[in-house]
Amino acid sequence: MPTSPLITLTTDFGTASPYVAVMKGVIRSINPTADLLDLTHSIPPQNLRHTSYFLATAVPHFPAGSIHLCVVDPGVGTERAPVLAEVGEHYLVGPDNGIFTGVFRHFGEPIRVRRLSNPRYWRPTVSSTFHGRDIFAPVAAYLSRGIDPEEFGPIHPNPVELGIRSAVTHGHRWLGEVQFIDDFGNVITNIPATRLQTLPVKVAIDGHSLGLLRWVRTYGDAATGEQVCLFSSDGFFEIAEVNGNIARRLAVTPGAIVELMLS
Amino acid sequence: MPTSPLITLTTDFGTASPYVAVMKGVIRSINPTADLLDLTHSIPPQNLRHTSYFLATAVPHFPAGSIHLCVVDPGVGTERAPVLAEVGEHYLVGPDNGIFTGVFRHFGEPIRVRRLSNPRYWRPTVSSTFHGRDIFAPVAAYLSRGIDPEEFGPIHPNPVELGIRSAVTHGHRWLGEVQFIDDFGNVITNIPATRLQTLPVKVAIDGHSLGLLRWVRTYGDAATGEQVCLFSSDGFFEIAEVNGNIARRLAVTPGAIVELMLS
Amino acid sequence: MPTSPLITLTTDFGTASPYVAVMKGVIRSINPTADLLDLTHSIPPQNLRHTSYFLATAVPHFPAGSIHLCVVDPGVGTERAPVLAEVGEHYLVGPDNGIFTGVFRHFGEPIRVRRLSNPRYWRPTVSSTFHGRDIFAPVAAYLSRGIDPEEFGPIHPNPVELGIRSAVTHGHRWLGEVQFIDDFGNVITNIPATRLQTLPVKVAIDGHSLGLLRWVRTYGDAATGEQVCLFSSDGFFEIAEVNGNIARRLAVTPGAIVELMLS
Repeated sequence: MPTSPLITLTTDFGTASPYVAVMKGVIRSINPTADLLDLTHSIPPQNLRHTSYFLATAVPHFPAGSIHLCVVDPGVGTERAPVLAEVGEHYLVGPDNGIFTGVFRHFGEPIRVRRLSNPRYWRPTVSSTFHGRDIFAPVAAYLSRGIDPEEFGPIHPNPVELGIRSAVTHGHRWLGEVQFIDDFGNVITNIPATRLQTLPVKVAIDGHSLGLLRWVRTYGDAATGEQVCLFSSDGFFEIAEVNGNIARRLAVTPGAIVELMLS
Repeated sequence: MPTSPLITLTTDFGTASPYVAVMKGVIRSINPTADLLDLTHSIPPQNLRHTSYFLATAVPHFPAGSIHLCVVDPGVGTERAPVLAEVGEHYLVGPDNGIFTGVFRHFGEPIRVRRLSNPRYWRPTVSSTFHGRDIFAPVAAYLSRGIDPEEFGPIHPNPVELGIRSAVTHGHRWLGEVQFIDDFGNVITNIPATRLQTLPVKVAIDGHSLGLLRWVRTYGDAATGEQVCLFSSDGFFEIAEVNGNIARRLAVTPGAIVELMLS
Repeated sequence: MPTSPLITLTTDFGTASPYVAVMKGVIRSINPTADLLDLTHSIPPQNLRHTSYFLATAVPHFPAGSIHLCVVDPGVGTERAPVLAEVGEHYLVGPDNGIFTGVFRHFGEPIRVRRLSNPRYWRPTVSSTFHGRDIFAPVAAYLSRGIDPEEFGPIHPNPVELGIRSAVTHGHRWLGEVQFIDDFGNVITNIPATRLQTLPVKVAIDGHSLGLLRWVRTYGDAATGEQVCLFSSDGFFEIAEVNGNIARRLAVTPGAIVELMLS
């Protein structure tokens, strides 16, 4: 076993700026054996919804006891609370702005959230614009050294949750939304694919009809350029263009309304 | 020595999507001390040829016993085989679609390839679109825990090889192709530079003449904007524009025909 | 404690090329327990000034004894010296081309710089275009194994420093320059914010007036689209557009002249 629990890092800082490097330095100065693992630093800037989906998809695959440090923080320095959340044997450290919504919904109760209020575990001076360096990285580092969660601050009731709509069905019709677009341009909705039959389906996005799409098991089952639907690897209704980027072609963005008419 | 052999990660998943993070979580849940190292997640999407060059250049530098997990997998879920290859004291885990061609040619015989057929070392449910998570990451993780390669499946004869042409020479003429374009836009061909003399050379790419280029030892030996040729760091004939991006200027892509006329 | 000191990696190699992977392989082949940590591989190509700012911001946060391997090396293979610098209990390995200017200024004396001249710690064959692989990575790896710095070469006097101007003030007027633009497009100058009062300030960049800007404590204190000024997280005068990219909007680049007229 490693000497320290795993600390994963997820930010929207990009990679040209020194911010990620600074956080790694801060953590390693507090815990020289910290076991750091980058998840991504390419969250689209300040995109809370994308972050929530990203974490909800990734976090459950990690071992119990992992610490997930996530800094996507458009409200840094305002009244939004810095928090440490405990859910499903995972620790989440970051701003209370909804980025943990997906993880909370994935694991469900019990969720214990603490407000980070004990400056003993912060850097001596806290800036207004970089809590990643001054609060979140130090807290993750001290947590990885075995400091008791209670030490960091009191229970923070009612953490912020994003208002992500659920998919609804009515007869042969499903109404949901785009929850994610991956790097290949595949469009992943929030409609549970297990509830669908693999018959051709009429699809419209934000009212724009894509016509009747056929189901494939995997991308290689259709010809280049064909628009198809399939089960996403997470079990949702997904729309793809084989060897193409359907999201860019149709200018689809997360949150777009998806309507299905089953055959 | 670390407690586990090294597992390197190479994909075309990009960094905004959670797929890489998911694979890291799966590996660490199977082997909590897995020694993970990112090579890249920015392989141009589904570009088998680029992947083959990338791995052939990088893998030989790693220590014996390293496990190289590579998921560039346009045929995921189709009949292409998932494989574990042993070559030159390295382990390669990924789809049998030609991405290991360059590594195979680098090391030569013996090459032992096994078809991953033993579901005991997979995730309990295997999707049609994400074998990186469901087959390849678990296999790499179990392999790093010391499971015998034989356990994963039977010998897979005749792995797929990409049809990469060799460079040919005839008198004062060389005919080859562009095998790689790096992030600086330098064009690396497959013509072995050790066979050339450093006299000025007439170069044409896909029939478009660049005129007579002079040789330099390194980029700093010419003025900004000058088009020059040199030995690539891997020993191939390379064309560069000093402090510029010659591949973009000339719209050159891998596979383009390169013709040299020696003086 | 880990068995090896930390080696951080900073380059402008990008991530599609195999160069970073090759360096990691070389290091791990020399020191299989090397503790590698990516800072960034997205330094804008050959941008010495950006590199200097990046390292000056990041390096001081790391623990004493860290080894920082940095390869941004437009003069590779020319007369520029390969060096190992010791400053502030950190080791810096890379080309002597000014990239360490910011770190040197941050820590001040004593600075000890050695010219890497002992081929015993290089790869057997040294190319003209990839000293990252052939000199810098091996030196960092041997250093992490405990080789004495003296072994690598003799003292190298007068390392190159970049000609970065200092900010100057005269009455109510400050004149400085843009030292950095982060991934969000925020413009960080070299004017020390601690010397300013938070009264509205007239700002001009390269002679183009932005009018009177008000100070905010953090981005969330103003409305989307408002142009504001604030203290950067490193204590410099910073200009930002809330939820926007002011650097792109104004086409500002590092080195641009910034003029402030205080109220």
